[in-house]
Amino acid sequence: MSAAGRPSLPHQLVAEGFGTMLLLATVIGSGIMAERLAGGNVAIALLGNTIPTGAILYVLITILGPISGAHFNPAVTLAFLIRREIAAGLALQFVLVQIAGGICGALLAHFMFEMPLLQLSENMRNGPAQWGSEFIATFGLLTVIFGGLRWRPEAVPTLVGLYITAAYWFTSSTSFANPAVTIARSFTNSFSGILPAHAPGFILAQLAAAVLATIFLRWLFAGERAD
Amino acid sequence: MSAAGRPSLPHQLVAEGFGTMLLLATVIGSGIMAERLAGGNVAIALLGNTIPTGAILYVLITILGPISGAHFNPAVTLAFLIRREIAAGLALQFVLVQIAGGICGALLAHFMFEMPLLQLSENMRNGPAQWGSEFIATFGLLTVIFGGLRWRPEAVPTLVGLYITAAYWFTSSTSFANPAVTIARSFTNSFSGILPAHAPGFILAQLAAAVLATIFLRWLFAGERAD
Amino acid sequence: MSAAGRPSLPHQLVAEGFGTMLLLATVIGSGIMAERLAGGNVAIALLGNTIPTGAILYVLITILGPISGAHFNPAVTLAFLIRREIAAGLALQFVLVQIAGGICGALLAHFMFEMPLLQLSENMRNGPAQWGSEFIATFGLLTVIFGGLRWRPEAVPTLVGLYITAAYWFTSSTSFANPAVTIARSFTNSFSGILPAHAPGFILAQLAAAVLATIFLRWLFAGERAD
Amino acid sequence: MSAAGRPSLPHQLVAEGFGTMLLLATVIGSGIMAERLAGGNVAIALLGNTIPTGAILYVLITILGPISGAHFNPAVTLAFLIRREIAAGLALQFVLVQIAGGICGALLAHFMFEMPLLQLSENMRNGPAQWGSEFIATFGLLTVIFGGLRWRPEAVPTLVGLYITAAYWFTSSTSFANPAVTIARSFTNSFSGILPAHAPGFILAQLAAAVLATIFLRWLFAGERAD
Repeated sequence: MSAAGRPSLPHQLVAEGFGTMLLLATVIGSGIMAERLAGGNVAIALLGNTIPTGAILYVLITILGPISGAHFNPAVTLAFLIRREIAAGLALQFVLVQIAGGICGALLAHFMFEMPLLQLSENMRNGPAQWGSEFIATFGLLTVIFGGLRWRPEAVPTLVGLYITAAYWFTSSTSFANPAVTIARSFTNSFSGILPAHAPGFILAQLAAAVLATIFLRWLFAGERAD
Repeated sequence: MSAAGRPSLPHQLVAEGFGTMLLLATVIGSGIMAERLAGGNVAIALLGNTIPTGAILYVLITILGPISGAHFNPAVTLAFLIRREIAAGLALQFVLVQIAGGICGALLAHFMFEMPLLQLSENMRNGPAQWGSEFIATFGLLTVIFGGLRWRPEAVPTLVGLYITAAYWFTSSTSFANPAVTIARSFTNSFSGILPAHAPGFILAQLAAAVLATIFLRWLFAGERAD
Repeated sequence: MSAAGRPSLPHQLVAEGFGTMLLLATVIGSGIMAERLAGGNVAIALLGNTIPTGAILYVLITILGPISGAHFNPAVTLAFLIRREIAAGLALQFVLVQIAGGICGALLAHFMFEMPLLQLSENMRNGPAQWGSEFIATFGLLTVIFGGLRWRPEAVPTLVGLYITAAYWFTSSTSFANPAVTIARSFTNSFSGILPAHAPGFILAQLAAAVLATIFLRWLFAGERAD
Repeated sequence: MSAAGRPSLPHQLVAEGFGTMLLLATVIGSGIMAERLAGGNVAIALLGNTIPTGAILYVLITILGPISGAHFNPAVTLAFLIRREIAAGLALQFVLVQIAGGICGALLAHFMFEMPLLQLSENMRNGPAQWGSEFIATFGLLTVIFGGLRWRPEAVPTLVGLYITAAYWFTSSTSFANPAVTIARSFTNSFSGILPAHAPGFILAQLAAAVLATIFLRWLFAGERAD
């Protein structure tokens, strides 16, 4: 703990890594559970994947946000970097523990469901409609985060949880919207996976959205409340 | 941004247009996703359409409400106009960007799901039971909005999200309750569409409800709290 | 409106009647919609009945609670009467408009779904397990309401909505827990109905629970917070 | 009631026992209901088990937390004991009424669904993946509780409800995460049961997680907020 009583670097890095690990354990684990039980009805499987994901996002952002900001997402960390609200060196460390934590989450899910720990996905997720979905999903996620921080910071956990709940269904890619999540999901050959060769397309779309959204949101959320 | 620090006209119009666009992308996109995956079980498809719609309403009203009031709905703007809480010129501009934003949302959903961008719905939604459903749905929506604004303004996003969640199921029309949504949904030949020739009946019922509800609610929500 | 600015008697009675009407329109309407769409899978139908019911309870209690207390339920009004927090004459009027409002809600649902307006249910719901379920459901409902009022009044709408969400599933009767709801549901021959001859058993169990719960809760919620 | 106006011992023990009873009635009752209605689709049955469980946890912790802390869980009581926030004698009494209350909840569910009151489960839940799931589920539960208490105590009911909603799906064991729940569920031969011979493995994993989590969380949640 730092002298000033604020979270130390180890606290922040553990919060980012531990949070991203639990997020991925939930995304991948609930995907495995849902697919196993759904008897081939993919809409039911996606419901069983969506509800836990939205719920855990509320939980993790509430309990870890006060320590590290609860990014769990390199695209979010990039947006804070562009806004000069995080130092470049810290941002880099955040991204590294996010990626490492996400992969650990995949392993954890595989362990809990008695699957081989190391896997590579064979799920095809490619093409302009998928990339566009990821661009839109990430643009929307940043709008939600920075809108929440601007007007109602205590609502950010709810906002992110409910936004992702919606975005799982309104995009054809089911809204990864997160490079660390994309990398981790390339390491699972289950419901929520993505072929490793298709991950870079997703990540590029996500990072491009982060850059453009940050510019747009600086304009949109300027000014005071209307009421 | 205006001199006074309050949202400028461009901020307000962008908030209304952007919000209505994301709302329709969610309504139509989740409808496409849900129908594709539900294996013919329409109740599951409607669940997969309802949950994202309720969730995104909470999100959009929370983050855009402080800028424009987050109407996203000409019937709501009409009610504010009758209450003289918005100027006629601004109301007209709100309605135009709501309609334009809604149609853009339909195109966005079609792009994400690799469907032809321009479509016309063939979904029959007609007759007194449907019009009555829209009247009741819109009357209820305005009750919820003005009741929330009267007693607990910070709960309005939750109120609208949960009200529409319920109304998707308790009306036979699945509660469009919004002329901009009705117009946009006439431009998609998917789960959530409405035959363009049937849209005017919906819109008339919605506007009639807006007028009558505004009169009733002026009486109902007068006075102070009971407790 | 009364001189003191507090809700007048007409305001209170309209709030109770209007609220109970919308509650029943939701319970019965969503039951019809869910059963029609569920393709014979009763668990999916019950989900499509549960989620709207829980959602509308949050909504109606939030917007009408400040006017009338948002009982919508003769068992709740009885509990307030035993606690001497409502006058006997007003309680009687509340119960009458609750029953009338509930029946109107049934008619409204039938109108929206193009069914005969007047119906009698043929749904058998009888025997000790059903009565016990209603006793437990109503006892729990009152615990939730008076616990919420004791410790966290602003959470009562959420508490009741989520309690009923749970109780639809943990009781074999699907938790009517409300004599006005029971009477109204005897007037619909659809998913949520109850054979009129079986309604008195439900109502007796509900009223007995109201009396006993009121006594128990007077003891349980005495004292100050632990923390 | 004690002289100081704070909850007396009987109040606290009744709150723990009554709350654990209602929790188990919900877990087991909704499991029976869901399995009966789901037509063999286990994912739908698990949804019908998850949503009521998450909902009732929010409810019970909100209304009983101010009396006893709303542990309902010997692993939680153990963590408070390690933190020296509960006396050993009181902790022991809490655990005893939690176990007794849980078993009563199982009987209540069986009564409501017209099943033999006394049953023993035949559900096999065994092996390292199941024990690991219980360890992870309990570790996460304690993280959520103590993180909530550290940063946002009023959110603890929501946090626990949503965490368990997620954990039902991301662990292969469906996250009992509670020795009293494990014991009670060994007494039901229905959807949510566990073979009595397999209960000790679950309970050991849960208690081990409680000890290790308490140590880890003392470090993680030290320090002040970042913002």
